[in-house]
Amino acid sequence: MNYAHPRNTSGEYMFKSRYLQTGALLILAFCCFTPATISADEATNRQADRTAIRAVLDAQQRAWNRGDVDTFLTGYWHSPDLTFSGSNGISRGWDAVLARYKKNYPDRSAMGTLDFSNLGFRFLGPDAALVLGHWHLKREKDEPGGVFSLVFQRFPEGWRIIHDHTSASPTETNSK
Amino acid sequence: MNYAHPRNTSGEYMFKSRYLQTGALLILAFCCFTPATISADEATNRQADRTAIRAVLDAQQRAWNRGDVDTFLTGYWHSPDLTFSGSNGISRGWDAVLARYKKNYPDRSAMGTLDFSNLGFRFLGPDAALVLGHWHLKREKDEPGGVFSLVFQRFPEGWRIIHDHTSASPTETNSK
Repeated sequence: MNYAHPRNTSGEYMFKSRYLQTGALLILAFCCFTPATISADEATNRQADRTAIRAVLDAQQRAWNRGDVDTFLTGYWHSPDLTFSGSNGISRGWDAVLARYKKNYPDRSAMGTLDFSNLGFRFLGPDAALVLGHWHLKREKDEPGGVFSLVFQRFPEGWRIIHDHTSASPTETNSK
Repeated sequence: MNYAHPRNTSGEYMFKSRYLQTGALLILAFCCFTPATISADEATNRQADRTAIRAVLDAQQRAWNRGDVDTFLTGYWHSPDLTFSGSNGISRGWDAVLARYKKNYPDRSAMGTLDFSNLGFRFLGPDAALVLGHWHLKREKDEPGGVFSLVFQRFPEGWRIIHDHTSASPTETNSK
């Protein structure tokens, strides 16, 4: 058989064959090159992702400010692989992070009023984001504050913090 | 034209057409479903990525320990979007990060001997990774230490740190 020059005994069949091949090539091109050509859609999705991540942080702030540490913790990945880094080293696992918060903030007066500000987003892939920001606590006796770096990951249930590195800044901590 | 039952007046042409269609479908399947079926290759790549990231950190450590802050800085993304978070807030841009290091570590005795340990890797997508670890400085007068969270991104020139959050741990800082 001569594949280079096949006999063409049916114009209609030739048309159909070309039609099928062109269709297959178009689907192929769509599959292979879509990532580079959906920047507008991607921008919209990233805006939706920012809004979703911001909603997680807003919910955390509201929970904290009504003294509800358990609901505050739902912003974190409920996993033994969750990590929290700070001046006391690295806490590993959801239970350890919850225990750390309950130890450091035993009551409403220690919790004060929390405010997150200057949030900055950087997406690290389709399902991961780095969020930088400042935290500030207004308490009766002092106003500690500092910066945090949060790594968010997208899960079926939504975006969750998989790693939190939080620092206190001496310059932002005002004693009263 | 009846596309459901085309006339088949050429067995040879029919064979070639099926051959082309099957080939196109196979390529299509490869393009669309490859990501889910290369876990073994992916594991190998991730090992290669860990080795490459570890090499960046090893080169940083060696540069630091010969007093070469400029070479140490080549482990970071050379960009105005590089960020460094710590107790002094957030530094933005490669120049600011370099200035911070030169201010905090003006000479060999301030730099001491640096050691990174307990590195933990978590990949956040094909081109991003979170690396947690401990740092320790051995100096004449003290031995400060703490933890860091590094976000690495893959660039054409290799893996580079795009964000560094470093904390000093009072419990790990021994004054002599």
